[in-house]
Amino acid sequence: VAEVQSGTGRLAGGKSPSYVAAVNAPEARASRFTARYMLASDIAYVLTAGELGLTPRESARNLLTALLALTDELDGIDTTQPVGDIVSQREAWISARAGKQDAAWLHLGRNRGESLRCYLPRLFFRHTLHQEGRRLAHMLTSLVTRAAPVLDAVAPNYHHLQHSGFTTLGEYLLSWAVVFERHFDRLAQVDRQLDIGPSIFGSRREIKDLYDGVSRRLGFSTRSQLRRDGIWIHHQFTEPFFALSLIAVDLARLAQDFRTWMTPEFGFLDLADEHAGGSSALPHAKVPFALQSVIGGGIMASTRLAGEMAAACNPSEGSEPLYQSASLYGLSEDILAWTQYMADVVEKARFDLDELQRKAVLDFAGSSEAHDRLVYDFGVPFRVGHRVLGMLVRAHHLGEPMPDLKALLRAETGRDIEVDQAEIMDIVLGRQLWPTTFDQEVLRATLARSEQSARKATQTFAGPSPVERAVDALLQEARAWIAAPAPTGTHR
Amino acid sequence: VAEVQSGTGRLAGGKSPSYVAAVNAPEARASRFTARYMLASDIAYVLTAGELGLTPRESARNLLTALLALTDELDGIDTTQPVGDIVSQREAWISARAGKQDAAWLHLGRNRGESLRCYLPRLFFRHTLHQEGRRLAHMLTSLVTRAAPVLDAVAPNYHHLQHSGFTTLGEYLLSWAVVFERHFDRLAQVDRQLDIGPSIFGSRREIKDLYDGVSRRLGFSTRSQLRRDGIWIHHQFTEPFFALSLIAVDLARLAQDFRTWMTPEFGFLDLADEHAGGSSALPHAKVPFALQSVIGGGIMASTRLAGEMAAACNPSEGSEPLYQSASLYGLSEDILAWTQYMADVVEKARFDLDELQRKAVLDFAGSSEAHDRLVYDFGVPFRVGHRVLGMLVRAHHLGEPMPDLKALLRAETGRDIEVDQAEIMDIVLGRQLWPTTFDQEVLRATLARSEQSARKATQTFAGPSPVERAVDALLQEARAWIAAPAPTGTHR
Amino acid sequence: VAEVQSGTGRLAGGKSPSYVAAVNAPEARASRFTARYMLASDIAYVLTAGELGLTPRESARNLLTALLALTDELDGIDTTQPVGDIVSQREAWISARAGKQDAAWLHLGRNRGESLRCYLPRLFFRHTLHQEGRRLAHMLTSLVTRAAPVLDAVAPNYHHLQHSGFTTLGEYLLSWAVVFERHFDRLAQVDRQLDIGPSIFGSRREIKDLYDGVSRRLGFSTRSQLRRDGIWIHHQFTEPFFALSLIAVDLARLAQDFRTWMTPEFGFLDLADEHAGGSSALPHAKVPFALQSVIGGGIMASTRLAGEMAAACNPSEGSEPLYQSASLYGLSEDILAWTQYMADVVEKARFDLDELQRKAVLDFAGSSEAHDRLVYDFGVPFRVGHRVLGMLVRAHHLGEPMPDLKALLRAETGRDIEVDQAEIMDIVLGRQLWPTTFDQEVLRATLARSEQSARKATQTFAGPSPVERAVDALLQEARAWIAAPAPTGTHR
Amino acid sequence: VAEVQSGTGRLAGGKSPSYVAAVNAPEARASRFTARYMLASDIAYVLTAGELGLTPRESARNLLTALLALTDELDGIDTTQPVGDIVSQREAWISARAGKQDAAWLHLGRNRGESLRCYLPRLFFRHTLHQEGRRLAHMLTSLVTRAAPVLDAVAPNYHHLQHSGFTTLGEYLLSWAVVFERHFDRLAQVDRQLDIGPSIFGSRREIKDLYDGVSRRLGFSTRSQLRRDGIWIHHQFTEPFFALSLIAVDLARLAQDFRTWMTPEFGFLDLADEHAGGSSALPHAKVPFALQSVIGGGIMASTRLAGEMAAACNPSEGSEPLYQSASLYGLSEDILAWTQYMADVVEKARFDLDELQRKAVLDFAGSSEAHDRLVYDFGVPFRVGHRVLGMLVRAHHLGEPMPDLKALLRAETGRDIEVDQAEIMDIVLGRQLWPTTFDQEVLRATLARSEQSARKATQTFAGPSPVERAVDALLQEARAWIAAPAPTGTHR
Repeated sequence: VAEVQSGTGRLAGGKSPSYVAAVNAPEARASRFTARYMLASDIAYVLTAGELGLTPRESARNLLTALLALTDELDGIDTTQPVGDIVSQREAWISARAGKQDAAWLHLGRNRGESLRCYLPRLFFRHTLHQEGRRLAHMLTSLVTRAAPVLDAVAPNYHHLQHSGFTTLGEYLLSWAVVFERHFDRLAQVDRQLDIGPSIFGSRREIKDLYDGVSRRLGFSTRSQLRRDGIWIHHQFTEPFFALSLIAVDLARLAQDFRTWMTPEFGFLDLADEHAGGSSALPHAKVPFALQSVIGGGIMASTRLAGEMAAACNPSEGSEPLYQSASLYGLSEDILAWTQYMADVVEKARFDLDELQRKAVLDFAGSSEAHDRLVYDFGVPFRVGHRVLGMLVRAHHLGEPMPDLKALLRAETGRDIEVDQAEIMDIVLGRQLWPTTFDQEVLRATLARSEQSARKATQTFAGPSPVERAVDALLQEARAWIAAPAPTGTHR
Repeated sequence: VAEVQSGTGRLAGGKSPSYVAAVNAPEARASRFTARYMLASDIAYVLTAGELGLTPRESARNLLTALLALTDELDGIDTTQPVGDIVSQREAWISARAGKQDAAWLHLGRNRGESLRCYLPRLFFRHTLHQEGRRLAHMLTSLVTRAAPVLDAVAPNYHHLQHSGFTTLGEYLLSWAVVFERHFDRLAQVDRQLDIGPSIFGSRREIKDLYDGVSRRLGFSTRSQLRRDGIWIHHQFTEPFFALSLIAVDLARLAQDFRTWMTPEFGFLDLADEHAGGSSALPHAKVPFALQSVIGGGIMASTRLAGEMAAACNPSEGSEPLYQSASLYGLSEDILAWTQYMADVVEKARFDLDELQRKAVLDFAGSSEAHDRLVYDFGVPFRVGHRVLGMLVRAHHLGEPMPDLKALLRAETGRDIEVDQAEIMDIVLGRQLWPTTFDQEVLRATLARSEQSARKATQTFAGPSPVERAVDALLQEARAWIAAPAPTGTHR
Repeated sequence: VAEVQSGTGRLAGGKSPSYVAAVNAPEARASRFTARYMLASDIAYVLTAGELGLTPRESARNLLTALLALTDELDGIDTTQPVGDIVSQREAWISARAGKQDAAWLHLGRNRGESLRCYLPRLFFRHTLHQEGRRLAHMLTSLVTRAAPVLDAVAPNYHHLQHSGFTTLGEYLLSWAVVFERHFDRLAQVDRQLDIGPSIFGSRREIKDLYDGVSRRLGFSTRSQLRRDGIWIHHQFTEPFFALSLIAVDLARLAQDFRTWMTPEFGFLDLADEHAGGSSALPHAKVPFALQSVIGGGIMASTRLAGEMAAACNPSEGSEPLYQSASLYGLSEDILAWTQYMADVVEKARFDLDELQRKAVLDFAGSSEAHDRLVYDFGVPFRVGHRVLGMLVRAHHLGEPMPDLKALLRAETGRDIEVDQAEIMDIVLGRQLWPTTFDQEVLRATLARSEQSARKATQTFAGPSPVERAVDALLQEARAWIAAPAPTGTHR
Repeated sequence: VAEVQSGTGRLAGGKSPSYVAAVNAPEARASRFTARYMLASDIAYVLTAGELGLTPRESARNLLTALLALTDELDGIDTTQPVGDIVSQREAWISARAGKQDAAWLHLGRNRGESLRCYLPRLFFRHTLHQEGRRLAHMLTSLVTRAAPVLDAVAPNYHHLQHSGFTTLGEYLLSWAVVFERHFDRLAQVDRQLDIGPSIFGSRREIKDLYDGVSRRLGFSTRSQLRRDGIWIHHQFTEPFFALSLIAVDLARLAQDFRTWMTPEFGFLDLADEHAGGSSALPHAKVPFALQSVIGGGIMASTRLAGEMAAACNPSEGSEPLYQSASLYGLSEDILAWTQYMADVVEKARFDLDELQRKAVLDFAGSSEAHDRLVYDFGVPFRVGHRVLGMLVRAHHLGEPMPDLKALLRAETGRDIEVDQAEIMDIVLGRQLWPTTFDQEVLRATLARSEQSARKATQTFAGPSPVERAVDALLQEARAWIAAPAPTGTHR
């Protein structure tokens, strides 16, 4: 936000080193995420102001030429210099190229400071959410592709890391497909909230025209109307980052599952070598560093979101969280990386179906099935069934003499219930699965629906993001205008 | 989650005092928020199971009778006893009333632990979001009602708590209307995400019928299909709480503004006596305790959200955040209270229009207008205008001799620019407002649109919430069924 | 902070319901943690003011009589009524007992609002830290008691949940002893920081005497000197809560380990039945609810701390976090409970030494030993040893033909190295442990030192806390003074 | 943590791009904070291993030569390449310089992965805390220097941003001196906790000797004894960062005060131009960007701490927070910058003593003094005084007829109290200050004590940090050893 130049406006002299370190250095860290959009907005402003005759045509051409060149060379530019925010930096960059005289027109119309709080975060996040959509589509595709052939592969079902009946590997993977599908709606909702161009001060016709043109060129379909709106709000940061963080949380949960599954003790999953780390010291080690990174990342995203929200709890026209935006933008890109990594992991991991089946029956995992059988097939009251099965399990676990099931049921219900104790224990111990354990119909329907979602999402997020498309179109427009500027005034 | 009863299932004996303190006591704190919905879900299950003939008709009648009575008496019940979660508590409550024999049927079908993670949070939050909608509608109404008569009342515009041109009190208030209007969309989106009934294990027809009936009776229009979905997810907690927290952040920002405005030094706003605190020691004090509570509340909501999200970054079938749900539910209700309070404050505060106008002109607040005039009316390059005005302001501020504006402009641009220095300084010092300072047309259009939103929202959120309506309908159904149970089996 | 009474001071009328809900209700939740200390401070003030003749002797006696009675009956009092903070509540309670006339003297000297921010949190936390010390002593005792007999019991050593050489169960447990021992220093340091009595305004002799007496009677050995100090600071909340939260984090880490260890797949640990939960549906389940509660608790404590700190980032004489103190105090008591629980778990858990030993050798866990042997006993360069062992492990893991170790070493180093490949593979596969694998000397020395710490800590934290002792002495003093008040003025 | 090299140990092939982005890229960001300490630890290991004859003398010399050269050139090295953690990076850097053959000895003894979790954070934070100490000493010096001449300058005292009696500017500034002084103790305590060198595995004599030598050379006075201690703990990150964050919170509070004070409405403080920002658009603006950065920074530090702590609530031998260490180290350096900035601000700000005095009397700020006079000088019961003064204030505020004070007191107390109503109102309105309003004796004593603390701290933190001194001595030792290595074996 602060000025790079010394002695501008009311202030004399340069900034103290402590000032530079306290505010300019942190804000310069964000420029690598926003510089491209800042230049794009400059092009939109200069082009529109040139069209409208607000900026002299020759100055506008020179500025646009310099801006287009800078855009092309951006990858090679040190975005931390001169130390300051991107607004000041790019003014210095342009001045050095286009000369001070023409550069004096650069900031025209932007006398409202909306850059850092309005269109830069909106453009960054609209683009980033689109990128995330593509990665989610990949995740979804990986999940359904891996789930399809193992819909029937029996696996342990866990509650609280303890056995709780049976599932299949396919069902497990599909349950993640459902989780990730829900994020597409959120991305779309947030994108709509971000689709607002900047507001202006006052009622000058020429400024309205300028802002309407700029908004359109940056891909916004509406524009804020009140001077505070679009700037002195925070949702352009908090909402997209929440949407991303929520995905990061889901990735962390999946990574936690996989970390446990890949212990030798569980032995359900083997990461592809390209997805695992080695040890600098232990020759034998295959280590889930990246899974840990994903887990820690979900947590760091959660608390970073809290930082953004808590720092926003300040006077409405303050900018307290703004100086640390680099870590917000940076974590957003990390979340893209984590999504990609986890999608790759799902795609290439080796699942050990034998081990999954073998361990599915541990710890009396079939007792829930047995309970259902007692209740629904023999009319045993629910809590009675729970109690007598608990007694059987306990005796079996401790190696004590087994109680007589029928006697227990008679004592509890006063009825003779013709249940076969051996069969019940077979179910409890997972020696036989009941026909009703799984619902293949539901699984196949879910698979089909998720496959369709995956195809649709892949299509939706293929190709460049709308932001990229708008910027590309803008660059072309600018190049055309330099070549042959339209006669001024036709737009007023 | 844990059992109140000692020695059930596989476990022998009671719980240690340390266990009770570590897990049961925290979870019992949540029961005051969920007990009503637990009983409603019990009624839905027992009624549907009775209809389906899964539970003997007489047992179902007795249970329903007891459940309806408990629902009526709920306000008088100590929801912290017996210490444990609401699932265990209500089983103890019902057993004491309906007898152990019939109570053995109570938990039928719920062999999937979905209560605490699925429908209780969904019902609580769907209801709470509706309550919040009503309060937001009140806020919006207060804002537009207060804004209408002061659309033209000049006020300082602040950036970073420093003067930045002029606004009007009406425009300021309308800018908050726009902020709060956006939350209605979010509430609706989250409600749709919460509209999912519980999932089941396996493929038994009778359980599907049971769950379909229960889901419908609890007001859900869809139902999860996979065993993990609906339980081993977290968005039923994180999404609605984010939506509420985001509102809390906006309330905190408004409270920060008002806290500054009500200092004697600013003097723009006087809280109604009923909205201010006194001091236990200082006889003269009128203190913004509640504004501070709102500010701190926005921050606490932000970090509590982070706690929920970070604790969810654990194995997918864990419940780490669950035991502290009381503080999540409690803060949600606090956010309702803060919304109501701030809406009341807006409705009844006394704004000092004279003081707002008097202080609007402090600190050369008109220099932005003067700058526009130089740029757009005299063609002065943007950065040149910025520089020369800065020099004038600085000289005036320090009491130094004023530089000659025309000479400065000539030196910078090489042109003679026929600007009237006295007029420019009048604008800088706010001695005259320019006709383009405000855009009355936009203000009136925004007011009209926000008034319409306020009316619509007031209507939408009038009356009981859909959750309340579903529960009321369910209670009536249950009463009717007790009086005349439909013949069993007609529903299978 | 706010007034219960209507129409006091400059304000007319009562509070709006929204005000009460926004600020009074949240603050009343804290009273159950602070009421006892509020009454104790009242007694200290009234007694000292009576001694000094500032309060008429008869009024002081009546007030003290009422205060002592209230203290005795405190457990039976509803501390949420009348809704408001404890300062207002206890004034209402006393007025009802001692009459309005004498109660008018109650608040004398407290015209500085220090209650809620100065001595109440200091007394609460000094007491709570002492309670925590006792629980830590129990934890330490449990750890050394369990470690002693299993110092030599071989167990897997994990890095990132993967095998990384060997440890012993005793070493593992002792490593936790070391972790928990460090907290004693922190508790002592924080206690010293909290040992500051309240500051006063101005230079009146009688107020100084009053505050000196009160400070001493509440157990403080120093007193703040500046009017802002002791009130407009935050460390009385943030420091003790950080100390407690850091313990909560360590408990969560231990709980994570144990949760993994108690899966049937690991099978290293069995919780005592009294420390495990059952399932409301699954008859066989033994579930680590409380471990999850401890894990989630460490996370919630971390983010609650952030809330306290972030909310303190407001004007220095604000109270933004204060209204939510109930959750800070409440979580502090939860951390006591979690410490107790985890100490109990350590004390009573069943470790499966056979399973620990059996799984210690999984996944080539001995390769680190083998590596040391190559490097230190045969002079193989470190990275060469790492590489060749990696090749052996990989071949073995994939069932490929084993490379020749000597040939590999010759190729890498150009030397003949007389190593026995079979012996090396025995080490890699854990078929033999090397004599240098463990350092029994260090283990025994550590055990001895930790045992001594445990004994010392047990002694230090036995008996009532210094705060309790100060309060008890104060109650006795007050009773004596009521019986025979010292002649007034002797203290002035 | 992860390997840069492809195909080491058990793993084949390189890493996937998604792996690199998910884990290597984030961890490489930390290297700019730790590279110097990594090289120092390498020097300590290679030198000690050379002395002990564990590494061949020539290899050790070559490695040391390369390490010393790298240390000298470090400022020019891109610490993000090759992408990976500093352990892998520096192995690549050294291999490129010293050749693969000698580099094979580099990692000797470090087969315990302690770098990233043990001595790097300890060295970084011990150095950083010392740097912070120097900045705190500067802050303290600034505060006492500015306070001394204005000990008697009357200023408003605020509670909750409302007037609450009087203070002096000197007293206000001294109250911050007291706040910042307390941090010195904390820094020292944390430094003691960080003073632990790495632990080893097993009981080999040569490894013990190696680690003893390394620990000593890196400036540690003790060494961990158990294999998990020093690595699988978190306090080396959480404790120093808490100490720094707590300072950040205090800085944020001071910044909040100053931001309010520098509004034109308050007008108490003018930042030096070098400490203020301008606006890119508004010519007149003098904007507290850096104060906002400090405020936001305190909040971000608080939530980043929560991230570190919450991510530590994972299995004890995990590294979940580690991959995001760059933001922890980076924020730590930001806190240094913010401390320096705020100390500079205090040193150079212009306080407006006239405005402070003029506004001190606003809003009946003297009513607390008047209250004391009634209570202590006329024996009016505390609550009666409160009530009658409230009535006077309210009448005055509303412009209503003033009640008769004596009549009010007679009605309330039944006594005739000879108080002069005009004098009381003079006090209430601040027209006269009472002799007991300030305690000059206390102020002067506090000033003297704080001046002494400032002198002492300035001395303590002058010169290089102990870490820098240890590293410098180590570099010299290494240079000497290269020139003339001691005969091997003399140390064994």
